Amino acid sequence: MVRGRISRLSVRDVRFPTSLGGHGSDAMHTDPDYSAAYVVIETDAEDGLKGCGITFTLGKGTEVVVCAVNALAHHVLNKDLKDIVGDFRGFYRQLANDGQLRWIGPEKGVVHLATAAILNAVWDLWAKQEGKPVWKLLVDMDPRTLVSCIDFRYITDVLTEEDALEILQKGQVGKKEREEQMLAQGYPAYTTSCAWLGYSDDMLKQLCTQALKDGWTRFKVKVGADLQDDERRCRLIRDVIGPEKTLMMDANQRWDVPEAVEWMSKLAKFKPLWIEEPTSPDDILGHATISKALVPLGIGVATGEQCHNRVIFKQLLQAKALQFLQIDSCRLGSVNENLSVLLMAKKFEIPVCPHAGGVGLCELVQHLILFDYISVSASLKNRMLATQQK
Amino acid sequence: MVRGRISRLSVRDVRFPTSLGGHGSDAMHTDPDYSAAYVVIETDAEDGLKGCGITFTLGKGTEVVVCAVNALAHHVLNKDLKDIVGDFRGFYRQLANDGQLRWIGPEKGVVHLATAAILNAVWDLWAKQEGKPVWKLLVDMDPRTLVSCIDFRYITDVLTEEDALEILQKGQVGKKEREEQMLAQGYPAYTTSCAWLGYSDDMLKQLCTQALKDGWTRFKVKVGADLQDDERRCRLIRDVIGPEKTLMMDANQRWDVPEAVEWMSKLAKFKPLWIEEPTSPDDILGHATISKALVPLGIGVATGEQCHNRVIFKQLLQAKALQFLQIDSCRLGSVNENLSVLLMAKKFEIPVCPHAGGVGLCELVQHLILFDYISVSASLKNRMLATQQK
Repeated sequence: MVRGRISRLSVRDVRFPTSLGGHGSDAMHTDPDYSAAYVVIETDAEDGLKGCGITFTLGKGTEVVVCAVNALAHHVLNKDLKDIVGDFRGFYRQLANDGQLRWIGPEKGVVHLATAAILNAVWDLWAKQEGKPVWKLLVDMDPRTLVSCIDFRYITDVLTEEDALEILQKGQVGKKEREEQMLAQGYPAYTTSCAWLGYSDDMLKQLCTQALKDGWTRFKVKVGADLQDDERRCRLIRDVIGPEKTLMMDANQRWDVPEAVEWMSKLAKFKPLWIEEPTSPDDILGHATISKALVPLGIGVATGEQCHNRVIFKQLLQAKALQFLQIDSCRLGSVNENLSVLLMAKKFEIPVCPHAGGVGLCELVQHLILFDYISVSASLKNRMLATQQK
Repeated sequence: MVRGRISRLSVRDVRFPTSLGGHGSDAMHTDPDYSAAYVVIETDAEDGLKGCGITFTLGKGTEVVVCAVNALAHHVLNKDLKDIVGDFRGFYRQLANDGQLRWIGPEKGVVHLATAAILNAVWDLWAKQEGKPVWKLLVDMDPRTLVSCIDFRYITDVLTEEDALEILQKGQVGKKEREEQMLAQGYPAYTTSCAWLGYSDDMLKQLCTQALKDGWTRFKVKVGADLQDDERRCRLIRDVIGPEKTLMMDANQRWDVPEAVEWMSKLAKFKPLWIEEPTSPDDILGHATISKALVPLGIGVATGEQCHNRVIFKQLLQAKALQFLQIDSCRLGSVNENLSVLLMAKKFEIPVCPHAGGVGLCELVQHLILFDYISVSASLKNRMLATQQK
């Protein structure tokens, strides 16, 4: 079924001036312009199908990612699509471990974002050729083929190929019913759009009231810049949504480890389900310390949107450093690397609640989370998808 | 003393075709072309002095770092040098945490390499204005000023500003004698040039013989691609250098955690002082597992040349994951971030043996290691500097 030779790769720097309205603002990213490096691949096949892939950015620096996509393009150009997806593990590794380019990563930052954008385009093209959305391509794929898309390098101490196969084979049971359920009901979600840090109290109140009317039951608020502000804003939101609805907090890496524990102890009275990104995304042991202190207060730790690869997620799971795992669809190396993280999360029985909200992220991540529920986790407990209300 | 406003920043993509001779080749980087993004800053002062800073690369992708330098340049241009170095912590944070650019890092990969190149240029210009090499600028600086150059964000659970000050104040004792000793004798070093993976057995033998004649006593060999090759090459080197000279091994991230332990157990008979980069540079817990298994065999774990920031080094120290800490002068955010890592290493009493060998690295790192000995560690035990023989 898979056909054609990649004949062209183009990449665009697409920016939206979201900072003008304070949309997306948080304690560390005060003026984001939600943007994307947008990759399109074309083949010489007569079907005219194109594969589109993106990585999300905050504006400045998108041109740096574009430059990195161009530096990686020679790995894709003039390759047969069937050779790429026929040895997808090998192709992933070729991109992620280019002998010269890996020095400026490896598997992190700009080159990894560029890798993700290119791989997203390949997955999109493959699915289009099969006449399916990506989630359905994944759900219909047999476990051995799925496993052959994953690079297990650096994670075999936690997840071997055999472990992965066993999880996926167990996931076959009840798969059809879960697929039907998802098509009928959709996946549970929460809104991130009500309480950006740059919004006024009035706007906060108005947006929460409207979201509640629209049927939202789970709300996320940005915290971390000023404790008094946080207390006032959290009280305001709880007043609007009541004590039963779910509230999550997000500090966007603002705190050091002791500060995170202290600050959240003071916000515990607002009964947050989780504190998201309390500190540096690189600080596995720090997250473990924070988890240990906050779980007894009923607060879980969530992180992942800036965790740069499967090795970091592996350790967060090993160290019991998080209670909610937030994959990003295009910071990790696209579907390929996300598959390995979904499987590790299943092994540790930690719920995956993907990061989304940025340009294109909601569109991408739905494929991963549907696959996760239908073929891997088989559970909705404590699971929900970030999204922005329209 | 510090003077002038930054009036110009230029950046060049400088490449050397080292791959033609297999120089620099290892188990993961089989064809490196040692290269650099080379930054020059100029001021409007009449002295005509220029600050030069680099970051090392392996060839491809240097243009991506150049692009990132240009994306960061507006933070430096039209700033007074005295404002930059007068609040160097603030300036470091401004570069490392640009609200839009940090998304494509943060503090890792391409943007952090670009940050390092720019900061290196600032340090170089500052030292030139003071009429001193950078190491002497650092050694002469009072502890409070040194501490004011460091961003302690994310490391205060291990090293506070007060801890840093205390270490530096203790380091004042005997400083003059250590400086004189360094000027008279230099810092101990080992050679990395004899045993690149791409070299033939004959070349290996010839280079080791020559290095021994030239007075080298410490030798590093690349391993990890093929166990039989490794055994043959290690035997060959031990035959040339004898049982008493120091041998280090370097796997350049080739192995998974269990594989590293197994492989090195088989190479233990060649009595290596350390195994360098046994696995992913992101795998703190993995390095801890490997250390625990190998230290009883007399083998230490060394890592750091691809550890992307102070948060990773903090955890490697916390987890007892390394016995030798290898800072890189321009993967970390230049002198500023390296200062924090030198001080954390001192707190944990782990010797710093810097990474070098690449284009410009030996020239840069000598400043850091002289400062480390004279003002921080005050010890040469188990310490040596990587270098390439000429």
